[in-house]
Amino acid sequence: MKKPPGQLFVLSAPSGSGKTTVLEAILQKDRRCVRSISATTRQPRRGERNGRDYFFLSDRQFRQARRRGAFLECARILRSWYGTPRAAVAGALRKGRDVLLGVDVQGAARIQRSGLPVTTIFLLPPGLAALKRRLKGRGTETADQIRSRLALAHRELKQVRQYDYAVVNDRLEEAIGAVHAIIKAQRYRVR
Amino acid sequence: MKKPPGQLFVLSAPSGSGKTTVLEAILQKDRRCVRSISATTRQPRRGERNGRDYFFLSDRQFRQARRRGAFLECARILRSWYGTPRAAVAGALRKGRDVLLGVDVQGAARIQRSGLPVTTIFLLPPGLAALKRRLKGRGTETADQIRSRLALAHRELKQVRQYDYAVVNDRLEEAIGAVHAIIKAQRYRVR
Repeated sequence: MKKPPGQLFVLSAPSGSGKTTVLEAILQKDRRCVRSISATTRQPRRGERNGRDYFFLSDRQFRQARRRGAFLECARILRSWYGTPRAAVAGALRKGRDVLLGVDVQGAARIQRSGLPVTTIFLLPPGLAALKRRLKGRGTETADQIRSRLALAHRELKQVRQYDYAVVNDRLEEAIGAVHAIIKAQRYRVR
Repeated sequence: MKKPPGQLFVLSAPSGSGKTTVLEAILQKDRRCVRSISATTRQPRRGERNGRDYFFLSDRQFRQARRRGAFLECARILRSWYGTPRAAVAGALRKGRDVLLGVDVQGAARIQRSGLPVTTIFLLPPGLAALKRRLKGRGTETADQIRSRLALAHRELKQVRQYDYAVVNDRLEEAIGAVHAIIKAQRYRVR
């Protein structure tokens, strides 16, 4: 029997929400999942290997690839370009692998607009109430700082509505289990 | 903080697909899930207990309850009536429990039409041949009953498309894991 194609999952999170940890844990647990290797114009850090950690491209190569439509989504972050190579994702999906993309809110929105079937998951830091309690309990922030932290959290929460699923990363093991359940469930989706 | 209300799940399957085994396993694994006990006018099978496996009602009791609107859905199957008591389901949901209903295709359709938010799962036997083997192995049905069960199963298989999820009960542990993942994932659904 022909293998059914894999599915595409996008995981977004405010930085510091444990996105990478969750992604790595899922890849360890589930052999059917692969992550997509991004292309970037930034310099390789020590120990990073081309084709394993990133596809390292020059600015010119990146621009050309972008013009060819080679990226599912791309964005400039701190002067470097990052992109998700379309062909690699499509190839993995054809082989029946589920592809996990860790991209930010804008990237997720771009992928959703591309019309490609995708399941989107937002990983949240613990909720506003808990956050407020924590900040006040900690007593290291001024009332002003607490207000701006909460405002930021509030803006993030509004973005959640664009996502299919939202997981609060309160306890890490639970968050990993939740994201994995979402991926597994999706395999049984009708249509 | 107020507990969020539970969610309603419908699990349908041709009889002999292992629906009861899967339901029982989920209830064991997940304390947040409860099953709804159906009312029926059919005779108890060996080992079945009133109020645990079913509420066994006379035809007259069933008709009266039905007229009062006491059932979320009810249907006549092979000369017996089956119904899902509405009050018990609503009460459990309010308490934050996820309610699992094992109902047939018509029942699932009726619950979907009722406008109640529900996630529907169809449990499929590996094939009709396997189903036949199982029914015969169970030894609780006559040859005639088996024939009509199989005819019914055949019609039901076509209905998978009305469901949100479909799980093939090929290996039991996998099927249980799949249904449980669907239930868990749904808890993280946005909206």
